[in-house]
Amino acid sequence: MRWFDANRGQAPGADDRGLAYGDGLFETMRSSEGRIPWLARHLSRLRSGAQKLGIALPAMDELISKVAEFAAENAADQVVKLLITRGAGSRGYATDAEEPPHAVLSSGTRQPDSSGWHVRVCQTVLPRQPELAGIKHLNRLPQVLARREWHGNRFDEGIMCTDDGIVRCGIMSNVFMVSEGNVVTPRIDVAGVAGVARGWVLQRAEVAQLAFTAAQLHSADEIFATNAVRGIVPVLTIDGARLPEDRPVTTRLMHALNAEWSS
Amino acid sequence: MRWFDANRGQAPGADDRGLAYGDGLFETMRSSEGRIPWLARHLSRLRSGAQKLGIALPAMDELISKVAEFAAENAADQVVKLLITRGAGSRGYATDAEEPPHAVLSSGTRQPDSSGWHVRVCQTVLPRQPELAGIKHLNRLPQVLARREWHGNRFDEGIMCTDDGIVRCGIMSNVFMVSEGNVVTPRIDVAGVAGVARGWVLQRAEVAQLAFTAAQLHSADEIFATNAVRGIVPVLTIDGARLPEDRPVTTRLMHALNAEWSS
Repeated sequence: MRWFDANRGQAPGADDRGLAYGDGLFETMRSSEGRIPWLARHLSRLRSGAQKLGIALPAMDELISKVAEFAAENAADQVVKLLITRGAGSRGYATDAEEPPHAVLSSGTRQPDSSGWHVRVCQTVLPRQPELAGIKHLNRLPQVLARREWHGNRFDEGIMCTDDGIVRCGIMSNVFMVSEGNVVTPRIDVAGVAGVARGWVLQRAEVAQLAFTAAQLHSADEIFATNAVRGIVPVLTIDGARLPEDRPVTTRLMHALNAEWSS
Repeated sequence: MRWFDANRGQAPGADDRGLAYGDGLFETMRSSEGRIPWLARHLSRLRSGAQKLGIALPAMDELISKVAEFAAENAADQVVKLLITRGAGSRGYATDAEEPPHAVLSSGTRQPDSSGWHVRVCQTVLPRQPELAGIKHLNRLPQVLARREWHGNRFDEGIMCTDDGIVRCGIMSNVFMVSEGNVVTPRIDVAGVAGVARGWVLQRAEVAQLAFTAAQLHSADEIFATNAVRGIVPVLTIDGARLPEDRPVTTRLMHALNAEWSS
């Protein structure tokens, strides 16, 4: 593994396979007072993604210490990003060369947590890719196109569906809905990322992994989004329609997570 | 547009959106005696891809002169690659920042043209992405995984299908089959790249754009693949089964292309 500190201007060369083909993975992590609370969860998802792509990572100890050191060195409350690629490559798709993988660390300011998100359902279709579902790989053009459906901060997040109209995830988050007390989230079998915060919620609450459409989402009692940087985020409006302000399930989970993060 | 000459070690920074999301496009071009015969075709496909992604390219004149100059400066018979990205980005999918796009030029040795290819039909599924079909974008993980189905040079190319079993394209080429004198190639509407060499063939021969399966491909009289570096390549075997050595359609097209390239 070759490490690059992007905060110090280091970057892989133009022959990096991440640039050429999106041949790699990333993790975007919440850092608080120089510590990443979910570091082990992030690195374990990274590892399972690397196994699927056949990218050989160093031992967990090395990964943990490199990322923890980077987070401690940089400013207190931030977003730390770890991007890994299959490394350098000559022209062509073949991966026989077995170059050492590249790891790029960068960090940026973390915005203060807002009270909730205004979301819209996107037109851009999320492709079905069972082989890549769950992992946080670098092929993110559908998300880029979905985010281009609006400008500025008119919305905070977009919800993406596959071509059968089934909701799969947000552009940068996972989506949960609560209907008559039942908590539901999409299965991550043909599309979407198995979010680290999503995994935390699945351990804390009884959640059914079921298929639902945007129309069903529109009639939910509560909607919340999750990602590892923001945690659990109540959805305030969807496509302009306001959700009820009473959100017992969302509020309970937010309290539990805040307690864990501040302990 | 910011230009990078990878042959001189220049590369975009770690915040390039091509690296982060595969947010860009590329062209791989045949260069012969320092000239790229299909340069205008390549740049016109690049332009249509950039329009779909909303990446603002400079005027055609600037693109043509930069790439032509690079090809002339470097060794005679080579492969020239132009990779463009949306440019630098801060964290997040939003493209509001309007940074200048990046263009990376590189070149490598072009292998002598072989007499034909041994191909296999891949298990890795090509996802349906109507919004991205046709353009040569940087989200190429399905191709990377398909190429990992074999090691070394046991095969020269792999054929990819969507989840309905319909043949769409090769990993690095387009595919044509000839059955009872009829030439057929897949439509590029839900997956695959609208190859520059494919476009040349469509202008030179009567070709039907029709759906066919791998089983139909196995029983073809002739199969040929096309790409801009190699031109028209006869398929010698498919999944180990030898095709007839008499290939009138393939041979006629190869002669026509060789005449154009050597003129």
